[in-house]
Amino acid sequence: MSEIRFNFVTGDWVIIAPERAKRPEEFVFSHKKDVLAGHVPTCPLCPGNEDSTPPETLRIGKGDGWTVRVVPNKFSVVNHETNIVRESVGVKKFMTGAGFHEVIIDNPAHNASIATLPAPSVEDILTAYKKRFLAFYKVSYIEHVIIFKNHGTRAGTSLQHPHSQIVGTPVIPGRLKSRIEEALRYYDDFGECLYCLILREELRDETRIISQNDSFVSFIPYSALSPFHIWIFPRRHTACFGSIDDRELHDLADILRDTLLRLHMGLGDPDFNYVIHSLSPQECAVKYFHWYLSIVTRVTRTAGFEIGTGMYINPSVPDSSAKFLRDVDTGSHGPSGE
Amino acid sequence: MSEIRFNFVTGDWVIIAPERAKRPEEFVFSHKKDVLAGHVPTCPLCPGNEDSTPPETLRIGKGDGWTVRVVPNKFSVVNHETNIVRESVGVKKFMTGAGFHEVIIDNPAHNASIATLPAPSVEDILTAYKKRFLAFYKVSYIEHVIIFKNHGTRAGTSLQHPHSQIVGTPVIPGRLKSRIEEALRYYDDFGECLYCLILREELRDETRIISQNDSFVSFIPYSALSPFHIWIFPRRHTACFGSIDDRELHDLADILRDTLLRLHMGLGDPDFNYVIHSLSPQECAVKYFHWYLSIVTRVTRTAGFEIGTGMYINPSVPDSSAKFLRDVDTGSHGPSGE
Repeated sequence: MSEIRFNFVTGDWVIIAPERAKRPEEFVFSHKKDVLAGHVPTCPLCPGNEDSTPPETLRIGKGDGWTVRVVPNKFSVVNHETNIVRESVGVKKFMTGAGFHEVIIDNPAHNASIATLPAPSVEDILTAYKKRFLAFYKVSYIEHVIIFKNHGTRAGTSLQHPHSQIVGTPVIPGRLKSRIEEALRYYDDFGECLYCLILREELRDETRIISQNDSFVSFIPYSALSPFHIWIFPRRHTACFGSIDDRELHDLADILRDTLLRLHMGLGDPDFNYVIHSLSPQECAVKYFHWYLSIVTRVTRTAGFEIGTGMYINPSVPDSSAKFLRDVDTGSHGPSGE
Repeated sequence: MSEIRFNFVTGDWVIIAPERAKRPEEFVFSHKKDVLAGHVPTCPLCPGNEDSTPPETLRIGKGDGWTVRVVPNKFSVVNHETNIVRESVGVKKFMTGAGFHEVIIDNPAHNASIATLPAPSVEDILTAYKKRFLAFYKVSYIEHVIIFKNHGTRAGTSLQHPHSQIVGTPVIPGRLKSRIEEALRYYDDFGECLYCLILREELRDETRIISQNDSFVSFIPYSALSPFHIWIFPRRHTACFGSIDDRELHDLADILRDTLLRLHMGLGDPDFNYVIHSLSPQECAVKYFHWYLSIVTRVTRTAGFEIGTGMYINPSVPDSSAKFLRDVDTGSHGPSGE
């Protein structure tokens, strides 16, 4: 008999269907990726082609030896605009598509992957995230900033060179509003941050933890919406990613790298998306929200049931998936000794 | 400059990005489907193999000459259960996965498609939807019933034989709750059904209409969340699909077939999902909700931005997509003259 679990964070029910459940090994990714060269002369994001991108907004590392570059997206979905029109006539409500959309070039190497980069390189990427996140929010009309990565074609990427994206919009996404409502309702009912409580319960249960360090915990939640749906929660309660300090940046690099390496080795480099869910710096101190990073591994497809209901069918058991990732022997690729 | 539009039905913002917009022809589906035989002896859903499915719950057409069969799903995500446990301890809330999950075998022919079936055959499929929908709601613990179809691998189907699915769950999906909230808020603000108003405005604008008949209108909404995202609205206000009468069933078969044929011919048989959004028969008379059928054409992929925000990026212009489908010459495949 399957079990229907409620995901308090998203407000969705998920059907954990053991009759359909596969063993973790059955999710090994069958769609092999191309083997890439370290440098591709025609790639606009590779070193030497810096002139083929719009002028960069951030560079980490000096001169030609940059480690991370951030550039405006050539195919931006929103663009900086000071004359913003906002209208609502009947059931037509629209506004100017103002905002910022930048590409974070994760690394100079065309074939790099966070899973296998040295920890300091991952820290550089996260530092770029933080700097651009805070810069975007300095623009008065920006209401929300989202940072995400698409890895692999199933995850929607179209460029091979490893990169992340950051988008600032002049509107508050509907999904964020509903998450805030859920979190606020919970806080008012129980007098405690929902996310802090989830973290405490996951740590007490232990069975769904993938790894942890001083500042972060990586786990597959009790009510994971899909196989290998992973959350990385900061231990310190704060609503805003922008408040992350140097020690935490270091620890996040460490745990993100370790988690993605386990996915990479355990499931054969599967496609995935990750996103950072956060409120704005102005909301940093709110008690009911807690920023976190969510990894959605794209080993199953959403179909009509998910589209129609927003409910999910998860054909895996969170506890056994977490154990599978815990047991991956990361060997020489393990935490760098720096 | 892109435009951000608000979808009042789903409560989501969508970025209509003309800089990224493709011409309708560019969405022609590149992933060609296998050419199928009309009968496959090893297919459990083909005639002659009736014994290889669980006992049917509905048959339309007599004896061996059935036109539609409905059978329990062998890999059901929920199962009938009278002893239902429902518990909530801290942030673990769960219940027994009770419910019903059936497969509607659309047609005896292994290579049939609603787009090219004669209208009476489509009417038989919709009749089966209605009968099982009403039967599911007769079970006291069923709170919601969803009917959907997955067409093609990108849309999540795993069986080639044409089929639809119906799932009854003992919980109310989060997405439905939020749609009811949006609709109720709108109704209370404006004293009118949101869906009725959308329909009136779409009919007045005309530019996004694909086709219409006495009972239904097929259109690409002003705030379509993705390319070729199509809504079919009944003209008569009612919250429940189960209240559809014979004349409307006939007209729905006609417009669904016509719309899918236009997609099929115009875009080269693209993958799609469709779902019927409806409240229960007990809620039939509520003034603020209006059942409808939504077609999600799977010509783009959702990525980190959509996962993180619930906002969508639509790289197409609804008006030109609708014109493209209107202009498809359905010729001899057009509305049957019965």
